[in-house]
Amino acid sequence: MNIQESTQKYDQPLTSVRWEGDSLQLLDQRLLPETIDMKNLTTPEEVWKAIHSMVVRGAPAIGIAAAYGVVLGAKQYTGGDKLEWLQQIEQVCAYLATSRPTAVNLFWALDRMKNKASRLAASEDGISGFYGALLAEAASIQAEDEEVCRLIGEHALPLLSDGMGILTHCNAGGLATAKYGTATAPMYLAHEKGMKLKVYADETRPVLQGARLTAFELQQAGIDVTLLCDNMAGMVMSKGWVQAVIVGTDRVAANGDVANKIGTYSLAVLAKAHNIPFYVACPLSTIDLNTASGELIPIEERPEHEITEGFGKRTAPQGIKVYNPAFDVTPNEWVTAIITEKGIVRAPYKDNLAALFR
Amino acid sequence: MNIQESTQKYDQPLTSVRWEGDSLQLLDQRLLPETIDMKNLTTPEEVWKAIHSMVVRGAPAIGIAAAYGVVLGAKQYTGGDKLEWLQQIEQVCAYLATSRPTAVNLFWALDRMKNKASRLAASEDGISGFYGALLAEAASIQAEDEEVCRLIGEHALPLLSDGMGILTHCNAGGLATAKYGTATAPMYLAHEKGMKLKVYADETRPVLQGARLTAFELQQAGIDVTLLCDNMAGMVMSKGWVQAVIVGTDRVAANGDVANKIGTYSLAVLAKAHNIPFYVACPLSTIDLNTASGELIPIEERPEHEITEGFGKRTAPQGIKVYNPAFDVTPNEWVTAIITEKGIVRAPYKDNLAALFR
Repeated sequence: MNIQESTQKYDQPLTSVRWEGDSLQLLDQRLLPETIDMKNLTTPEEVWKAIHSMVVRGAPAIGIAAAYGVVLGAKQYTGGDKLEWLQQIEQVCAYLATSRPTAVNLFWALDRMKNKASRLAASEDGISGFYGALLAEAASIQAEDEEVCRLIGEHALPLLSDGMGILTHCNAGGLATAKYGTATAPMYLAHEKGMKLKVYADETRPVLQGARLTAFELQQAGIDVTLLCDNMAGMVMSKGWVQAVIVGTDRVAANGDVANKIGTYSLAVLAKAHNIPFYVACPLSTIDLNTASGELIPIEERPEHEITEGFGKRTAPQGIKVYNPAFDVTPNEWVTAIITEKGIVRAPYKDNLAALFR
Repeated sequence: MNIQESTQKYDQPLTSVRWEGDSLQLLDQRLLPETIDMKNLTTPEEVWKAIHSMVVRGAPAIGIAAAYGVVLGAKQYTGGDKLEWLQQIEQVCAYLATSRPTAVNLFWALDRMKNKASRLAASEDGISGFYGALLAEAASIQAEDEEVCRLIGEHALPLLSDGMGILTHCNAGGLATAKYGTATAPMYLAHEKGMKLKVYADETRPVLQGARLTAFELQQAGIDVTLLCDNMAGMVMSKGWVQAVIVGTDRVAANGDVANKIGTYSLAVLAKAHNIPFYVACPLSTIDLNTASGELIPIEERPEHEITEGFGKRTAPQGIKVYNPAFDVTPNEWVTAIITEKGIVRAPYKDNLAALFR
């Protein structure tokens, strides 16, 4: 399907994971933005392959896909024995857990499905209803994720106003979650309410999630989005075009330090220099009270080829030294506010983040 | 030629323009960094083609190449008539001037060659010496450019010290000039004197001059260089790895505002926030006293495809809006010093820049 055509079809966040009839549909994110291909999956094996090969990406989206993968496993059981049924579900869960061995949301979602199956097997209910009950559980996981994102967007709305320029980085978008995303949730919610925003999306080198995913999904939703190279953000701020920066995060420390995609730190410094508020949008599950401060967050260094030949073509000399950190840490003093599903948190972060969990 | 092999061969700035025997050798910069190909040119037509197709880039390098192109034209004249000889030289100059119609250095170098030819034709000297005299003039243009760059490097040396980390952006390097470059001149001079520097080169999206050219030429010269994505500069500064930023410039206004490759402004803000000096290296010819301030410098906007498909592969959605300014302007208050062939200039720039020309 051509993207130009599909622009006509969508005016809401593009869904990357969707249950339809009795099969799972996954948007092949590897082909974005050139091709929109919804894959139709009917077996756990297909789901395993889709997660493993990154047809689906984004921690929440992976968890949701895996949960539906368990449902597809349940569909295959045609017997009448509850214990046998439970064993099959547990096998499917163990199998799907091997698809991406480091994805925390994957294990969390599979555990939840397994627990649901245990409760069903131990219940007085007839086995004929188990499939529907598992499907409902997977749908709940998806609905809860959507609701968390929606609430993040709702809480952010008072920070926005009509005509505002918003700059974002990487993809903390609807493609990575059930719907709405985190950093993008305020943009989708504002759009639903008819508010006009002007979004600037950093392309986000080296992997270009901003260009390939954020620019794409906002464009699909009919939101006014302009693509920038990362090094243009400062100039755009200096022109007075940006009234807020909103980013997602991979982990927030107990003191409010924020780990996010490389480049976020520079944006926070630039925002501060231009008196532009710098907001971080995230679910409570991203806030890690066990990590005291940002310097304790390990920063993954990624392969050199992402920088030297990330576009299918070598763009740097052979043998060149490369530094490729995947993330950076923004100190809490440059974070204007953290927007969660429970509301907006401001400094002092140590106290105010802890209070969210009480 | 493989670059790994050639690393063994060079331990000084790679020369992009070189006269050898009676022909012109040009490094094909389009093929960098993958291939080092010195093209051998023997006619003005070949030089025209090389400039037009950007085998050679960088304003000073283009001017030098064109001057040698005039020499190649003179070589073709076998008659004995001074006036006819002069007409032929003027024709060659007019022809070469059409190779890149907006390159100021090109016209300047061709005018200088034309004036030299006029003086020769009007002199009492025998025509047999004209070819050598023109060659000497072209060699002077090259030598003067090299000397200007070397002096910039010399003046910058007191700002540097052993073990220092230096961050640079784009390519204000030896490939664009006769030798040494402008922003890179301090690095080459320091290297010649045995000083160890650690250079960080921004890749410089969208056209990647940092990755393709700066990282390449510094690596060739045996200088310790690490390639970064533009959005990593802030993080690298925050780690304390950078003690100076040195960039080139396309134009300095009379008040010291600096126009340079997009991303320079962000670097200046980041340098300020980290108390890192921000230096601009340039010849006097780049300082434009007729432009009062940076806001009067027109900023060229470049084609969208540089961002959306700059690597021979589309990396952004079809139809996406793109902002692609080629340059930005750094206000003078963020410029620690401007390093010229006549010495280092600091604030107040209006007075101190004007004094350079008195």
